[in-house]
Order: sequence, then structure tokens, then C-alpha cells
Amino acid sequence: MRVLTLLTDFGTTDYYVGAVKGTVLRLAASGAPPAADRRVELVDLSHELAAGDVAAAADLLAAAAPTFPAGTVHLAVVDPGVGSARRILAVRSAEQLFVAPDNGLLTPFFGPGAEVRSVTRTGLFLDGPGATFHGRDRFAPTAAALVRGEPLRDLGPVIGDPVRLEAPAPRREETPDGTVLHGRVVRIDRFGNLVTDVPAGWVGAGRAGDPGGPEGTVEIAGRSVERWVGHYAQLAEDEPGALIGSLGTVELSLRGRSLAERWGVPRGEPVVIRRAGSRAAG
Amino acid sequence: MRVLTLLTDFGTTDYYVGAVKGTVLRLAASGAPPAADRRVELVDLSHELAAGDVAAAADLLAAAAPTFPAGTVHLAVVDPGVGSARRILAVRSAEQLFVAPDNGLLTPFFGPGAEVRSVTRTGLFLDGPGATFHGRDRFAPTAAALVRGEPLRDLGPVIGDPVRLEAPAPRREETPDGTVLHGRVVRIDRFGNLVTDVPAGWVGAGRAGDPGGPEGTVEIAGRSVERWVGHYAQLAEDEPGALIGSLGTVELSLRGRSLAERWGVPRGEPVVIRRAGSRAAG
Amino acid sequence: MRVLTLLTDFGTTDYYVGAVKGTVLRLAASGAPPAADRRVELVDLSHELAAGDVAAAADLLAAAAPTFPAGTVHLAVVDPGVGSARRILAVRSAEQLFVAPDNGLLTPFFGPGAEVRSVTRTGLFLDGPGATFHGRDRFAPTAAALVRGEPLRDLGPVIGDPVRLEAPAPRREETPDGTVLHGRVVRIDRFGNLVTDVPAGWVGAGRAGDPGGPEGTVEIAGRSVERWVGHYAQLAEDEPGALIGSLGTVELSLRGRSLAERWGVPRGEPVVIRRAGSRAAG
Repeated sequence: MRVLTLLTDFGTTDYYVGAVKGTVLRLAASGAPPAADRRVELVDLSHELAAGDVAAAADLLAAAAPTFPAGTVHLAVVDPGVGSARRILAVRSAEQLFVAPDNGLLTPFFGPGAEVRSVTRTGLFLDGPGATFHGRDRFAPTAAALVRGEPLRDLGPVIGDPVRLEAPAPRREETPDGTVLHGRVVRIDRFGNLVTDVPAGWVGAGRAGDPGGPEGTVEIAGRSVERWVGHYAQLAEDEPGALIGSLGTVELSLRGRSLAERWGVPRGEPVVIRRAGSRAAG
Repeated sequence: MRVLTLLTDFGTTDYYVGAVKGTVLRLAASGAPPAADRRVELVDLSHELAAGDVAAAADLLAAAAPTFPAGTVHLAVVDPGVGSARRILAVRSAEQLFVAPDNGLLTPFFGPGAEVRSVTRTGLFLDGPGATFHGRDRFAPTAAALVRGEPLRDLGPVIGDPVRLEAPAPRREETPDGTVLHGRVVRIDRFGNLVTDVPAGWVGAGRAGDPGGPEGTVEIAGRSVERWVGHYAQLAEDEPGALIGSLGTVELSLRGRSLAERWGVPRGEPVVIRRAGSRAAG
Repeated sequence: MRVLTLLTDFGTTDYYVGAVKGTVLRLAASGAPPAADRRVELVDLSHELAAGDVAAAADLLAAAAPTFPAGTVHLAVVDPGVGSARRILAVRSAEQLFVAPDNGLLTPFFGPGAEVRSVTRTGLFLDGPGATFHGRDRFAPTAAALVRGEPLRDLGPVIGDPVRLEAPAPRREETPDGTVLHGRVVRIDRFGNLVTDVPAGWVGAGRAGDPGGPEGTVEIAGRSVERWVGHYAQLAEDEPGALIGSLGTVELSLRGRSLAERWGVPRGEPVVIRRAGSRAAG
């Protein structure tokens, strides 16, 4: 059995998600031999991404994919360029397989050891009406080929120039007054937590409150936070605080409410963390 | 293994979807023999249809079902008449199986060769409390019987008078000035595209821009569109255009935004396409 | 094969649901032996509960879980206390298995015969970053152990003091004028129906309209309803009515619209039902 995850911006009121699922299931079972291990378990990651939000898709997939079993096929279709000459990618990275448009969505998986191919085996594609639904007509058949166990190399040539999302990296600055960390809000979750890209290791190791634990003044959108906690429930109702989030970066939270909404902070907002005295560890 | 799709207007915050899934899984596994192929793979098509929107359910299922493997069971419950004397249908059409209320939802599957039965085998039904949740108490057990491989004919008699949705068909009119096509918006998707029922073949064959490719002036809601493209990305930002959509009909789109919202166009809106000179092909 | 249901307040735009699914799938397949029956079928119950709404999670699970096959594992993570010292529970009740935080979510499953354990086998847990995502780092591995067939008793000791949700029970009052039933709205569904906790048996047995069928005057939020029906379609458009709902309790409904919205009734609203004369049956 193969696991196949689905990540799209198709929403859940149209037929689009159903047609991708149906096509994968139909084509995964096709061809010889019809073995028991041709089955595919479909797993929805999300279909509710903002339309065309390639960066959000890349972030979500980067966080979710590593939790899956080796050999999982991840099909991600956030594809504002559908129908154009943009390529379709098939990638192997850390024992997982990915199929997505060549628009930066797979940027997190282009690291060392990755096998990045452009899908040129057009014989796989379906001749559906129009050129607006490659999810059904091209991506699904490509993913189905991987589910059937066809080798990645049979899909097309290795390429060295996939489109990459450029994101400003967080950085550290040493000043006479201490260390200044510069990052940004990379994700706002359903609870309104502000997830930044500042690594936990830059603000201190260990638990909040312990010696050497995370500390520093977090400045964002004209506000500042000095309270560090280990988890949300340590905050008082309606109190903002900083903590280490589930991806190992600094996160800002308000107990019981959305901090993003309260402070009107959008994704991308810069964040500065000032740590007096001792230098941050590596 | 059988694939069973689910399409409802139950939303995703109530227990309704879970209870239908649980009941199907429980009853699919019941009875002898407990073979490996009694397993069912549940596939959510949508649970977010507007409450009671039978026409939207019919449209979604018509577009999604043909992509699934032969033998798939499609369970669709949009059922404002739940508890009343309306019948429950079990249908075989193009090698797929369907279970739904007799309210027009399965209209797209009543074509030649279809086997349309009224489910009268009440012994299948569960005696749940109340009469408001036939999804759990009647539809799920019926679908589970099909998943178990019971023959369609054992569910009840063939009927010739299922309730049908009446939809005005698109039509062509030949005038001294050329061809005039009359249709309507049958679907507005998540991206705000206006999907019409005007067949691609009526506006020209082949690619946009090629000789013989789609052309004509599209009039809708007091606006008109003359620009034809092959896919969304050929439009400039914020430019409206016409193209052939994923179901082989004319679609209107605005690059990067919702055209439905921009122009305030609802589902059902009439659309007229005027083609000068040469007659449209078949 | 094991069925594993998922119920969270994670929403469907973040990576959280995907990471829980991926972790369960990865860990369910790990260890020896890699048998075919190590497979898990993931079933989404809901991820759209209001953030931190433990009571809604308990209600949904109480209604949905009994429909599933024996041996199903239900993983429910609505966990405002994540990271704190609150315990993690693993419960067997009526042949089903449950994993959830010890915050009252599993209250419906603490009845006679239930086996309630505190998960103390910390060797199962993952050492993910931060302490904010026990769904991935603790709950998913615990559920995966059950999917692998590990015995419940190996997860930790039986406890007698799980946190329980306290809900006021409905009550009956006999007066000279008849019976007065006191309950409350425990659920408002997607259709705007008001589901109360007043048992069907208290308002009469059998069908609406039949002798002995449900009757009485329902008072709520300054309004009253005297019309009893068997199902929604018996109401006229826009007419409010009372009926027996799918969980065997009194429900108030408005044909074709949301009654909750129309009358501005929130969850928890008290309801009083007055029955003249004869006493309600047991």
C-alpha cells in the first residue's frame, strides 16, 4: 500500500478535489499486475489554502511531509500557471516522493541528495477538455504512476534549475548591547499564533524559566513581549507571550484568543528579538 | 477493496459525516465472509454544499464520478425531504453505483443503459431514533450492502419515473448576422470562475488564437468579453477572458481575482455568445 | 486493518492535521511484524470545532463513535492545556478505543465497564521541538501503538479520577397543571436546528400526530412552539416546529432556514416543555 497525500487550493465545494482523487484511484489500479499493494491510501493535507498561495503550500508541505512513511507520494497542486509552459516536477527527497508544478512549491525539498525531475513523459497525461485542470489531467496521472511503483527516472530528466521561492533568511547581529535577531512571521495558524522563522537555538536552549532557557525582548508591529513560557497554558487569560513552537522556532501567542487578530499582524511581518549581554549559542 | 465516495451538505462541524462513515465501515465489514476485499476506502467529495442544494450536488457528482474506478459506490445525501415518503434510489450507470434520495440528485446518471432502482428492502435499514437522519439509518446501510458486493437487483425494483432536475439546455440560433448561442452559468467555482453550459464545440475547435479556434463575443450581466485564451495565465492581471474549461464548456475568468464577485454574477445567470459569419460546427 | 478516526480543533489550513496523520501512518507501520493488518484507515470526523471547545468535541464523539466497527481507535485532540501536566488518557469503552487529553473530552465514555488509563509510557512519545504540539509528539504515537495492536494495559495504569465535564441534566417536574420538562440546547447543527437534551420518551412515544405521540408546548428564548412533526419536510416553509432528532432528543427546527439564527439562540439556552394533563412516560 502507498500513501498519497493531497494538498491543493481547490476548496471543498467544487468537483476538483474529487476528480483528482478519482483519477489517482482509477489509474493507480490500472495496468498489470493488479496486486494488493497497488492500493493507495488518500490523505488530505489541506484544500483550503488561499487561492494561488504557493508559499503557504510550500510551508505546509515542509512541515507535514517529514512525518509520513518513507515512500509516501505527496501531490501538491497550487498552480496559478496551469495550462502555461511551466514544467511539472517529480522529486525524491529524504525517501519521500513529490509531484507539483514548477513554481517554487517544492523549494523545501531541493536540498542535497534530492532528485529533481521535469515530467516530460506526456504519454501519461490525459486528454481532458480544456487546459485549466492539470490536477486531473496531468498531476494525478503522474502521481498514479509513482503509486504504481514506476521509477522516478522514467518520468523525465533531472533538471538543475527548478523555480525556487526566495525567502529572506533570519539573521543575527552582534551589537555592544547584546544580540539582535531579525526574522519574520512565516505562518499564522488557526489559533492566531504568530509563528516566526527565528530558530529556537538563537534565543537559548532548554526550558523557559530555566537558566539558559529562552529569553529576550520580542518586538513586533510596535509592541513588545518579554514573557517566555514553555506552553500556552502558562499564560494568563489574554496575556501575550513567546515560546518555542512545534517547528523549533519562536512563536508568539495570546492565551485563549488570536494574537494575529488582536494586534492586526499579517504574515510576513518583521520581528526583532533583543538579547542583552551573553551571546546566543550556535 | 471498494471505493466509496461521500457527498453531502452536512458540513464538517457536526457528527453527521462521522456517523455515516462509521455506519458504512461497520456494516461493510459485517456478515460473512470477512474477506480482505470487504474493505472500503472512503473518499470525501464534499460536505460543504449549500444546505439542500440538490442541483449543485448533481453537478458535482456528474463531474467527479466518471473519474473513479469501475465499481465505485457513490453515496450522495442532500436530502431536504428526509423522513418523508420520497424514495431512496440505487443506480448503476457506466459501471458506477450510486445511492441517493429520489429528488433529482442523480439526474445526470439516468441516461441510456442506466439501471435505476427504488430501495425497498427495508430490512437493511437501521432503526435509529427520529426520522431526521436517513444518512445514517438508511443511506449508509444501503451503500454498505453494495460495498459488501450484494447485487443491485436485491435492493428493490427497477423504476421508470425517478425525479429529474429540469435544466434549460443551451441552444443555438442562426441569424443573418451569424450564430447566437444561449446558455447560462451553471457553476461558480472557488476561484470565482463562471462555468457555463455552452459546449466548446459551438465556439470553435482547437486552440484559442489558432484559425478555427474559439471566438465570439460573450455577453453576460451587461458586460461583454471578446478575449479568448487557452488558460488563465494568458490573461493579464485583472483582465477578464473566455476559455474552454475543464468540463468542455465555455468559462469566463478574471486573472487573479473572482470574476463572479467583481461582476456580481450569480449561478443561473444567462450568457449569450455572438459569432459573426461562419456557422458553428456540430 | 484498523480504523482510526481523527477529531481536532486544528482547522484545515495548517500543517497540524497532516502531521498527526503522517505520524500515525509512519508509526503504525513501524516495528515487527510488518503485517497487512498493520494498515490503518484514517477517517476525519472533524477538524473544524471551535478552538478549545472540549464540550463540543465530547458531544460529537459521543454521537459518532458508536457507529464505528469494534476495535476502532478514536484520536481526539482538543487540548487547550497542551504542554502542561494534564494527563493523556487511553480508554476502552463499548469495544472502542479512545486517546485524548484528560480534560473531560472523553466524559461520555467513562460509564460502567470502561477501562480508563493514564498514558505514562513516555518511551512512546516523540521528542519534537517545543511543547505545543502533543498531537504529533504524544497523541499520535499513542494512537499508533493501539493501531499496532499493543494492549491498552501496556500504556499506563488505570485511574479513577479522570477530569469530567459537568453538564446540567434535564429534569422533570410534576405540577398541578401537568408535567414541566427542563432542558437546554446542547447542539446547534449546520442547518441551524436546535438540538436539546430532553429525551424523546419524556414528550410521548410514537409518531407525531398519533395518539400518545410527542406533544407539549416548547418555550425557548421568549418564544413558544406547539407544532410537532415527524420530520422537517412536514413543516411549511419558514414554519418552526418540534420533532424527535437523530439522537433521540427533542429538536427545534425551521423549514428551510436556520432557527438558531432567526431567533438568535445560542448553545446552552434553556428550554422548557409544558405538557398538560397526563404524566409523561418513563
